[in-house]
Amino acid sequence: MKVGIVGLGLIGGSLGMDLRACGHEVWGYSQRASTVGKAIVKGAVDVACPNWADLAPAEVIFLCTPIGLLVPTAQQLIPHLNAGTVLTDVGSVKASIVETLEPLWPNFVGGHPMAGTAKSGIEAAFMGLFKGNPYVLTPSDRTPPSALAQVETLVTELGADLFHCAPADHDRAVAWISHLPVMTSASLIAACLGEADPQVRALAQRLASSGFRDTSRVGGGNPELGVMMAQFNRSALLSALQAYRGVLDGVIDHVEQGDWAGLESLLRQTQQARSDYLREPPV
Amino acid sequence: MKVGIVGLGLIGGSLGMDLRACGHEVWGYSQRASTVGKAIVKGAVDVACPNWADLAPAEVIFLCTPIGLLVPTAQQLIPHLNAGTVLTDVGSVKASIVETLEPLWPNFVGGHPMAGTAKSGIEAAFMGLFKGNPYVLTPSDRTPPSALAQVETLVTELGADLFHCAPADHDRAVAWISHLPVMTSASLIAACLGEADPQVRALAQRLASSGFRDTSRVGGGNPELGVMMAQFNRSALLSALQAYRGVLDGVIDHVEQGDWAGLESLLRQTQQARSDYLREPPV
Repeated sequence: MKVGIVGLGLIGGSLGMDLRACGHEVWGYSQRASTVGKAIVKGAVDVACPNWADLAPAEVIFLCTPIGLLVPTAQQLIPHLNAGTVLTDVGSVKASIVETLEPLWPNFVGGHPMAGTAKSGIEAAFMGLFKGNPYVLTPSDRTPPSALAQVETLVTELGADLFHCAPADHDRAVAWISHLPVMTSASLIAACLGEADPQVRALAQRLASSGFRDTSRVGGGNPELGVMMAQFNRSALLSALQAYRGVLDGVIDHVEQGDWAGLESLLRQTQQARSDYLREPPV
Repeated sequence: MKVGIVGLGLIGGSLGMDLRACGHEVWGYSQRASTVGKAIVKGAVDVACPNWADLAPAEVIFLCTPIGLLVPTAQQLIPHLNAGTVLTDVGSVKASIVETLEPLWPNFVGGHPMAGTAKSGIEAAFMGLFKGNPYVLTPSDRTPPSALAQVETLVTELGADLFHCAPADHDRAVAWISHLPVMTSASLIAACLGEADPQVRALAQRLASSGFRDTSRVGGGNPELGVMMAQFNRSALLSALQAYRGVLDGVIDHVEQGDWAGLESLLRQTQQARSDYLREPPV
């Protein structure tokens, strides 16, 4: 199959490497010519496409730009496509993207590969990034079954764990397990910076160990990405934040009132529940 | 030197192994005779002490029981000690312990080795647990310099990174980097359990990956330990929780009002600040 990839970073580049290994012909587009060159050297792209029109022969095109560029990119690309071309994206939020792109291009299938590393860019791309990781597709009532089937076939070939759900359900789920953790973790770091005594702050910095390192990791990540999550998944994130605030208020109440039985019951519940959220064995 | 260890779990057992390797004679006491037997087999103890009085020859005694048992244990032990014996503890909260034990035994030095693993018990003890990790001593104005010097010598021999601070400063520092993270992390898990739609909850469980695993780790830990932190470090933890709630409210405001510049500024600050809290390179 001729597969187009627009945006050749970690996700787009890794997708190209895997799809080529499966025998597909990969047509690659990037805003920067040098990135396409690197992608060809790396074995992620067969055919460099300097212009949107060059992607016309592709049967399925993956939009792999940062989430804020998905819609403007699609708007530039669409005038050059044949009616039969299937468009899919890899954005980490789905409802707003699907609502905007579906009317513009009926042969559209929303998608989200749940895979990544701390690194980004074509240099970080590697074969097997998607293997064993969830890949969510969010078809709507209007998605043509043939378009869905074509994307499903490619995702299955990547060795990914295929899920289907409604765009809004996807966004609520990732608000809980991906976007809320970024905000609670960043709030932890910011709260520590509020310590007024410089000696105590310095001591805290020196004494922090693996517990703090793990709890603060996603809150110390890419700020632009955190803002994108909040912008594109605002209402689901807000619901999650408000629920979280309610739980936190309960914890503060337990500590304030010395209700140790109440606190222990909560901590027992979270200890038991955590394993349900770990695909891999607890660490 | 003759060193006594009361409580032969992960910390007490590892301490015994290291101190014996430094040439000291380790006198061990545990509530369970079988634990002392295991400690001897493991090379953590030279002399088994079935009774408190048997510890009398020890020059320095480490109290290594769970934090809730430190004071009652010291009260039982003290009547059997010689006036010159130095007593030190390894409790993870210091102000309340130091305030209670110092009047009972003037030759007391509060201590907290910041080392541990997910495992506990004598079976988990190993040589080198303290090497390169912080070991905080919290002497007061009343601590005899000779007692402090003896404990310092032993801690230095362990290869630990020695810190001194006031008990209250220690408690505020660990509230930020150890006790607050447990509460924010547990609140994250508990908030996710509040998702009313079982399909979305199940989807969140299946899609959760390394970000959620790290952020939820300490909130899924030992409930008794979490309660102990809150009980013994209540006022410092409450201050930290309240500061954290203030920051969280700010995040909620940014998202509610679409103040993306404000959110980005916060996330940029936390990204930069996090490295100050990591003794090891960022992961």
